[in-house]
Amino acid sequence: MAFLVPVLIIIGGSTMQLELLDRLRQINPIVFNISNFVTVQDVANGINAIGASPIMSEEINEAQEMVQLSSAVALNLGAFTMPQIEQIRTVGHLANQCRKPLILDPVAVGAVQYRHNVVLELLNDFDVDIIRGNAGEIAALAGVDWHAKGIDAGNGEDDIAAIVKLCAQKQQCVVILSGTIDVISDGKQVVKISNGTPLFQLHVGSGDMLTSIVGAFAAVSGDYFVAAQSACAVFAIAGQLVAERLNAELPGTFAVQLMDELHLITVDEVQRNLKMEVVK
Amino acid sequence: MAFLVPVLIIIGGSTMQLELLDRLRQINPIVFNISNFVTVQDVANGINAIGASPIMSEEINEAQEMVQLSSAVALNLGAFTMPQIEQIRTVGHLANQCRKPLILDPVAVGAVQYRHNVVLELLNDFDVDIIRGNAGEIAALAGVDWHAKGIDAGNGEDDIAAIVKLCAQKQQCVVILSGTIDVISDGKQVVKISNGTPLFQLHVGSGDMLTSIVGAFAAVSGDYFVAAQSACAVFAIAGQLVAERLNAELPGTFAVQLMDELHLITVDEVQRNLKMEVVK
Amino acid sequence: MAFLVPVLIIIGGSTMQLELLDRLRQINPIVFNISNFVTVQDVANGINAIGASPIMSEEINEAQEMVQLSSAVALNLGAFTMPQIEQIRTVGHLANQCRKPLILDPVAVGAVQYRHNVVLELLNDFDVDIIRGNAGEIAALAGVDWHAKGIDAGNGEDDIAAIVKLCAQKQQCVVILSGTIDVISDGKQVVKISNGTPLFQLHVGSGDMLTSIVGAFAAVSGDYFVAAQSACAVFAIAGQLVAERLNAELPGTFAVQLMDELHLITVDEVQRNLKMEVVK
Repeated sequence: MAFLVPVLIIIGGSTMQLELLDRLRQINPIVFNISNFVTVQDVANGINAIGASPIMSEEINEAQEMVQLSSAVALNLGAFTMPQIEQIRTVGHLANQCRKPLILDPVAVGAVQYRHNVVLELLNDFDVDIIRGNAGEIAALAGVDWHAKGIDAGNGEDDIAAIVKLCAQKQQCVVILSGTIDVISDGKQVVKISNGTPLFQLHVGSGDMLTSIVGAFAAVSGDYFVAAQSACAVFAIAGQLVAERLNAELPGTFAVQLMDELHLITVDEVQRNLKMEVVK
Repeated sequence: MAFLVPVLIIIGGSTMQLELLDRLRQINPIVFNISNFVTVQDVANGINAIGASPIMSEEINEAQEMVQLSSAVALNLGAFTMPQIEQIRTVGHLANQCRKPLILDPVAVGAVQYRHNVVLELLNDFDVDIIRGNAGEIAALAGVDWHAKGIDAGNGEDDIAAIVKLCAQKQQCVVILSGTIDVISDGKQVVKISNGTPLFQLHVGSGDMLTSIVGAFAAVSGDYFVAAQSACAVFAIAGQLVAERLNAELPGTFAVQLMDELHLITVDEVQRNLKMEVVK
Repeated sequence: MAFLVPVLIIIGGSTMQLELLDRLRQINPIVFNISNFVTVQDVANGINAIGASPIMSEEINEAQEMVQLSSAVALNLGAFTMPQIEQIRTVGHLANQCRKPLILDPVAVGAVQYRHNVVLELLNDFDVDIIRGNAGEIAALAGVDWHAKGIDAGNGEDDIAAIVKLCAQKQQCVVILSGTIDVISDGKQVVKISNGTPLFQLHVGSGDMLTSIVGAFAAVSGDYFVAAQSACAVFAIAGQLVAERLNAELPGTFAVQLMDELHLITVDEVQRNLKMEVVK
């Protein structure tokens, strides 16, 4: 169903988006992460492998310096305690004040009511530029009553595109729903990327890693919709290239080679493999 | 010394235990982990690789929802601070209330008196279904004065079996002592599994991973003694199969391929390799 | 520029330093780590792979027992909150009281003023035996105004040697500046190790791992200057041997094989590959 589209058709004649990967590697932007303790090492290594620099901190007293040092801020709500929410709030405000791109990963807000409530409060407190979540999480932030389980990007693709667009409109930011297919919207356009591999599901933290890599792309692009698409394309195709080389479902080996591939992947490889389409 | 026993002889004519692996993969149970921050990513990936789903949280306000979402709860005491102990207490109570299988990993209670005291308090506060520890930890919970160092499952196997049984009686639950040989008791029977590989010792978190995988098996079995045996057999044989393929002691490669093998291993492979015996 | 020097020339006719690796593996010392949550699992596995035993704890109530159990204490300031600083202070005092070698990794003190202030306070509170940092961090602790970015061990090697020596004099301990070249001083002599590989930069936590491995060597040597050199030599050459086998820059594979090599590397391999020189 998805078909190969040359990059320049998608983004109004510009090939800028994939060149962002080269620009990222040249600039080596610092991404400040409020991280999920479950996946933090992988996320740090992923940011590093793609060509950016990770910093992590949980201390509110150094939040201002950390935000000032960085070129993008990624807030992962994977595992947060009450004191961490205060720090997240502070860092969100600071990112807005310092005009740093702010990425949010609303982990499990579709499944846990407490998290849903906390995230809605946070989204009232500061402005997010890009949200990256799975189907259940994005549906929850779109205000759609959809159970996390049972959503399959293969079925009901039209519904999913509509939900992502609705979420982008409601939250007034770029929204990425990542899964078998990545669906990305700025509230006006919706773009679908049909690369990737089911092996991402077998490695905990794939989504967290993508969120922070989106931050790295946002750090080197003024257009967050373009940054989001570029990051998703590079990440999905890196995983796909690894999966194509494996002769079995090997979650451990996949994780290691994904790190290798994030470092090696070229704009040319992304361009040759990209399956992207404008949905509506 | 250990000999190959067909599964059906061990468990009174039933082959149910190894079929639990297939059931686990079909049901994909959620295991809620109070985790050791040192090994948490590996544990999450291990749970995922075997075919279950991990959730982790350190926030007491979402403890109830997390327990309700899950089919088993694994409490790892690997690295706990005072506030975390309060959360562990709360989660333990909730697991009892919601009748979820509750697994405890009493990390270092044999070596650190403070931990010993905390664990004994916790064990008074809620009921544990399965304890998984090493020789020093299980001896401590059995009330036996045995130094962690110097215990070798090769010597004094009879003593070890007696300690595991005593611990199971004292704590009124199933007890797993994992090591070169895994010894498992429900307080009446004692079973020994002589699979595995010394390479487990070279990878930090092998024990933590086993604890949570025991939780995944307990989630799909009404009989915790059987669940414990099945989990130990699958885990030990996965490690053994990896070790047999390596031509040197490679702790990094072992960890990666263990993750692969946890995903690939079949009931048939477990059955062909199982070295299990009823001790007393 | 660096040239191969037989070990016995460097250290006044003694070959003791490299034999420390064998002694370490024989004694299997426990290293207590106040760890960076970003890299903690890798650090634990690295300590384990080289032949020592890691323990980690964040709870002040068990600090005394942990210090007493251990043969060296490594304080990593990678990611610390206010309560963690109190614990670091307590553990530092205890290490001094119990006369355990104390290693400090002053993460990001060159880039973040808040951290610089905290570390200077801590260094007033207890005595450190060895400091391990990158160029920006060591310069900051030497009181030299040098920006973290732009320091290249290739240029200005003389300046770097002077800074390391100055830092060692100022902080009255052994100082390791690790990077493309490792520079080590006890305030009198300066030694340079020109092994290693740029791939260390691609793996987050390489420096943290080295810090704790330095702790393991300090645990089995009365001479911390010798311990520091030995640890740096073994670690750098392990990375170099892995890099020489890879045919591309593979950060994921490098991390896995580094763990393998830390376990396999022999005194003989270190001796054959060592590029060490006394600078001044």
